[in-house]
Amino acid sequence: MRAPQRFPLDGLPSRVEIYEVGPRDGLQNEATVVPVEIKAQFVRRLLAAGLRTVETTSFVHPRWVPQLADAEQLLDLVGDELDDVRAPVLVPNEKGLARALDKGVREVAVFASATETFAQRNLNRTLATQMEMFAPVVRGARDAGLPVRGYVSMCFGDPWEGAVALRQVVDVVAELHELGCTELSLGDTIGSGTPGHVAALLAALAEAGVPVERTAVHFHDTYGQALANTLAALRAGVTTVDASAGGLGGCPYAKSATGNLPTEDLVWQLQGLGIETGVDLEALAATSGWMAAQLGRPSPSRTVQALAQEQVLEP
Amino acid sequence: MRAPQRFPLDGLPSRVEIYEVGPRDGLQNEATVVPVEIKAQFVRRLLAAGLRTVETTSFVHPRWVPQLADAEQLLDLVGDELDDVRAPVLVPNEKGLARALDKGVREVAVFASATETFAQRNLNRTLATQMEMFAPVVRGARDAGLPVRGYVSMCFGDPWEGAVALRQVVDVVAELHELGCTELSLGDTIGSGTPGHVAALLAALAEAGVPVERTAVHFHDTYGQALANTLAALRAGVTTVDASAGGLGGCPYAKSATGNLPTEDLVWQLQGLGIETGVDLEALAATSGWMAAQLGRPSPSRTVQALAQEQVLEP
Repeated sequence: MRAPQRFPLDGLPSRVEIYEVGPRDGLQNEATVVPVEIKAQFVRRLLAAGLRTVETTSFVHPRWVPQLADAEQLLDLVGDELDDVRAPVLVPNEKGLARALDKGVREVAVFASATETFAQRNLNRTLATQMEMFAPVVRGARDAGLPVRGYVSMCFGDPWEGAVALRQVVDVVAELHELGCTELSLGDTIGSGTPGHVAALLAALAEAGVPVERTAVHFHDTYGQALANTLAALRAGVTTVDASAGGLGGCPYAKSATGNLPTEDLVWQLQGLGIETGVDLEALAATSGWMAAQLGRPSPSRTVQALAQEQVLEP
Repeated sequence: MRAPQRFPLDGLPSRVEIYEVGPRDGLQNEATVVPVEIKAQFVRRLLAAGLRTVETTSFVHPRWVPQLADAEQLLDLVGDELDDVRAPVLVPNEKGLARALDKGVREVAVFASATETFAQRNLNRTLATQMEMFAPVVRGARDAGLPVRGYVSMCFGDPWEGAVALRQVVDVVAELHELGCTELSLGDTIGSGTPGHVAALLAALAEAGVPVERTAVHFHDTYGQALANTLAALRAGVTTVDASAGGLGGCPYAKSATGNLPTEDLVWQLQGLGIETGVDLEALAATSGWMAAQLGRPSPSRTVQALAQEQVLEP
């Protein structure tokens, strides 16, 4: 299989943790509802490909996300195989947290907005009152000894509001940090950010006392910027990068958002830079090709496409 | 129209020259042969969108590239409109140069290989003897007062040979520089390069005496790396970046090569970084959308797709 030549760059980390969001963020945003046995096989194949952080599902009400209505069944199928890995689940509220704790989940994530409009549309809350919803969830999880990831969406632009001020993002991230979140994931939900914007936001967060070691980045490739933005984040000291196997998913509530950064494209870059991820790219791309077939459409990942093409050409 | 927020990054140039390859490299590698009147309209629209360097066509024998058999007719249609811009044409040999000079062309480009296998497959020459073919072309053009661009393909990997040594690329680029080429374009024909590789090659070239001001980069997005690689090149001092409107083209002789870096994705990044290009992104994306319709398929550019989607959603 083709592979990038290895050329490290000064000032980058030696190892990056890939936070795989395909089974949750990816499948939640696909039109097709995938049977739970296929989801279980997907999670198993991701682990077999070397991923060590896999967000498996969401305990949101099935009315809002029917694609993940099988959260309990999925954990019944794969729960025993998640002992040695990080396998967070999304919990929107205290009810979701209770369901997660019932299933023995050992890490959870909450989902906040950096903008007023998206807080109202996605959470039915204001920027001020969204924290009232998260506070008991974060406290409950931390009291139970669980790490809590805080997602912040619309950090680099909002489809309704346009530009988003750094100050506003910093405030929301810092609040989640103070609430007790152990990891903060900065989402470029509409994919409009560019590398200088990433560097500026990370600098502003560091200045506000949010440690870069607790910061992850979550880029969408809507305008093709996700990997260049990742490079800027790595330079600023970020070592946790969200990605979605095969580029699964998007965001149904954000106009013209396309998929997440494909994990394979990220792994190609990190391999070339000599940065350890533990991922077997060939096994991962085969998994994404298989999942794309389940969904009845090609994978949007350039790397998955290129490697599949290579197999056809060089059998 | 949506636009990136402006956040400059230290150490990047304030202005970048986009070297637009769509009409030549793009259309040459499309299955559809575009009528010459449409090509003329394409060139005019690219100029109207603010591009100031447009490679218009190729004086290669029509047997090899039937898509560009109309080189003379195209220049008859648009030649008068190219007075204030750089409008190079590709010339494979002395015959091609004679045809170009006949039409009053004021800049030409030659196309070399960094690898033995591609030199043989694409040029029917060896690495050693390809220069014998270029020498009289470069000399003839320089004697006529024309600048000459030297393309070097397979600089970051070769589909048959795999890894390509920096030394080998440096030798070919330095030879073209010594022959009298005024600009050297480093091609990642199979798109496998990553940012550290780009930085290492540019450092090796600078050490060998090839000035970075004469160096351009030509990335393919086969593995999604093109924009991150561009960022690495800008950091190293490169200020000329090749791109193809709407991501037109690819390379029919290189297995699993996909299209060039789409100009729109590049402009989005540069706008976000506060780097001047002179390009009107909306006019450019509309042009690429129109050309994709002529070709009967969607544009592979993420930015073209996102902006078109935005228009549908926000009429």
